[in-house]
Amino acid sequence: MNHAAASWASLQAIRQGAPLVHNITNFVAMEVVANCLLALGASPAMVQAEEEVEDFLEIAQALVVNIGTLSSDQLAAMRRAAARAAALERPWVLDPVGAGATPWRTRAAAALIDLKPTVIRGNGSEILALAGAASGPTRGVDSSHGADEAIDAARQLARSSGAVVAVTGEIDRITDGERWREVGNGDWRMTRVTALGCAASAVIGAFLTVDPEPLRAAAGGLAVFGLAGERAAAESAGPGSLRWRIVDELASLDEAVVLEGARIA
Amino acid sequence: MNHAAASWASLQAIRQGAPLVHNITNFVAMEVVANCLLALGASPAMVQAEEEVEDFLEIAQALVVNIGTLSSDQLAAMRRAAARAAALERPWVLDPVGAGATPWRTRAAAALIDLKPTVIRGNGSEILALAGAASGPTRGVDSSHGADEAIDAARQLARSSGAVVAVTGEIDRITDGERWREVGNGDWRMTRVTALGCAASAVIGAFLTVDPEPLRAAAGGLAVFGLAGERAAAESAGPGSLRWRIVDELASLDEAVVLEGARIA
Amino acid sequence: MNHAAASWASLQAIRQGAPLVHNITNFVAMEVVANCLLALGASPAMVQAEEEVEDFLEIAQALVVNIGTLSSDQLAAMRRAAARAAALERPWVLDPVGAGATPWRTRAAAALIDLKPTVIRGNGSEILALAGAASGPTRGVDSSHGADEAIDAARQLARSSGAVVAVTGEIDRITDGERWREVGNGDWRMTRVTALGCAASAVIGAFLTVDPEPLRAAAGGLAVFGLAGERAAAESAGPGSLRWRIVDELASLDEAVVLEGARIA
Repeated sequence: MNHAAASWASLQAIRQGAPLVHNITNFVAMEVVANCLLALGASPAMVQAEEEVEDFLEIAQALVVNIGTLSSDQLAAMRRAAARAAALERPWVLDPVGAGATPWRTRAAAALIDLKPTVIRGNGSEILALAGAASGPTRGVDSSHGADEAIDAARQLARSSGAVVAVTGEIDRITDGERWREVGNGDWRMTRVTALGCAASAVIGAFLTVDPEPLRAAAGGLAVFGLAGERAAAESAGPGSLRWRIVDELASLDEAVVLEGARIA
Repeated sequence: MNHAAASWASLQAIRQGAPLVHNITNFVAMEVVANCLLALGASPAMVQAEEEVEDFLEIAQALVVNIGTLSSDQLAAMRRAAARAAALERPWVLDPVGAGATPWRTRAAAALIDLKPTVIRGNGSEILALAGAASGPTRGVDSSHGADEAIDAARQLARSSGAVVAVTGEIDRITDGERWREVGNGDWRMTRVTALGCAASAVIGAFLTVDPEPLRAAAGGLAVFGLAGERAAAESAGPGSLRWRIVDELASLDEAVVLEGARIA
Repeated sequence: MNHAAASWASLQAIRQGAPLVHNITNFVAMEVVANCLLALGASPAMVQAEEEVEDFLEIAQALVVNIGTLSSDQLAAMRRAAARAAALERPWVLDPVGAGATPWRTRAAAALIDLKPTVIRGNGSEILALAGAASGPTRGVDSSHGADEAIDAARQLARSSGAVVAVTGEIDRITDGERWREVGNGDWRMTRVTALGCAASAVIGAFLTVDPEPLRAAAGGLAVFGLAGERAAAESAGPGSLRWRIVDELASLDEAVVLEGARIA
């Protein structure tokens, strides 16, 4: 089965099984993440109290952790949830938003990486910061480094952490430390809408529930999400319309569109 | 006055009086709840600090409590607010999102029910969990039980709590423990947009400010909200468009549409 | 350079420089604030943990503080961030949402004003409450006083605080305690969409990064935001469409539109 066919098979499996994806994410992203997961066919839950995250993982099929608007309370819940996910052998995704911007944030991301995420998805600046390779501070949540510069850092981080690392940018580059996948889907206008990177991470979480191979799941999720985004961008007058059109597109992707449109190499 | 005419009268009263509806709700829902209340004609406020919720109820006309992304801090504020609402004889609505999914969440919802909500609105799984009738764990925030199965549970919960209980689903069923109302408005596609159930609960809160009869207010609010949703769904290419069209529809409902469209029995 | 030309020059500078605007804002507003700043050309960040707000200001070019869904933890972070902004001579904007609604909220806003905001933007009720001139409690977050009634209060608050004070309403009135600007852009339908006032405050924050003169920056930001809003309102069937169209309009404003449309006197 080629890459596009594998992506379509996973999307079908998500639509049929409606996997429960447990998100501990930032307050800017919560709504668009939930609506993108619903449009994909998954069942999103946003549960973040320390008192219940471990119990909730008993019924969830994947966990997605995103540190965009991190607090110390949320970090404590994330650590509990990630440890439980590992114990239960649930796949989990780390989105280290803004790693490198402040020392506290970088340390928080590093502590989460110690809990063995299945996939880490970030922009070039974030991955460079996490690999200890950044030459200067990152600029908040928007990437100031291209994905290309981060290739060495991604390989290094994948090897040291055991995670599949996805560096998203004009071309998304995904590695398990040895093998590489490249995804050419997406559109630059997606970077003008907040939290679409967070939504991409959540989509990877959904793909991990139906595909045991993280490298393939990450590539498939990014291809499907990017394909919805490029179709939405083509019809949109601006970022306001792109934001809701991508949700419509995610819900309406069909076999022909995915087989012809997914660009994974 | 028939049911549809009563719904229209309440909607007019909301538009004329712009009642202040105090919400302590989840982070996914906050924005769509606020915009649905504004579109309805009410004045929403999201105030959730323990230090001020009691004072805020002095000026609010109803309270809506939603446990979707509950934290212990938020629960403490909810308990204070609910107790004050009861003391001030303000109507209040409980939306027990995800009750049954974890023991902590179920206990939190039960503790809030002890504070005498006017109306409890949930899906079948949540109402079954709260009535102690669930045969297994619920599946997060999406219902895994039909509304029909929850009829006995709703009656039991209404009698034990003193609240009007609304179980929403393909047909919404509402009871005070003796009488029943059924609302046939809505569209299945509304379940593919996050937090529209939360918005329905908030709309019930607004209806309670202009109608002293909770059974009628809950039915009227669900009919008006469902009517806006079905009109939005008919024009929408997907869940992304449905989400903003329902806000437009709420703001533009007129007498003819409500009198012809509200399906309450 | 006339007022409209100055607004256009600032908008161009924002688009070229993509200034990093640090927001500590309410949970209802976070998403629309981030998307409005991105559409304007700025780079938004929502960072609110006490552990990192001071460090983050090292890289941010302005700070925007909004108390809409205030908690005591958030207030502590706001105070640290505001003090650091003052120490680093970064401009900062205070949006005192709901000041006057509860004593705790009014005291919190007053304590923030002691930390020397560059600009305070509020509706008439909020500015009256903060100037100690309100004759009664405000009604939550919607203004129950017109902007006209708040003129004396704005002058008084500007003089006592050292901030530029902007009272937004049908006509926005902005003062440094001596001089006044009036902005005639905007549309009443913008008041039916939640958090657009919060977004206006954030846009002022972006303008402050490219214009050292706070009176002119506040007027320019309000004119550009109001212009986008009135253009969006003209095309919108209701508040649901207005909410995304204003984002599209912010991203597409060009020189001719701003020079002809900005109404600053």
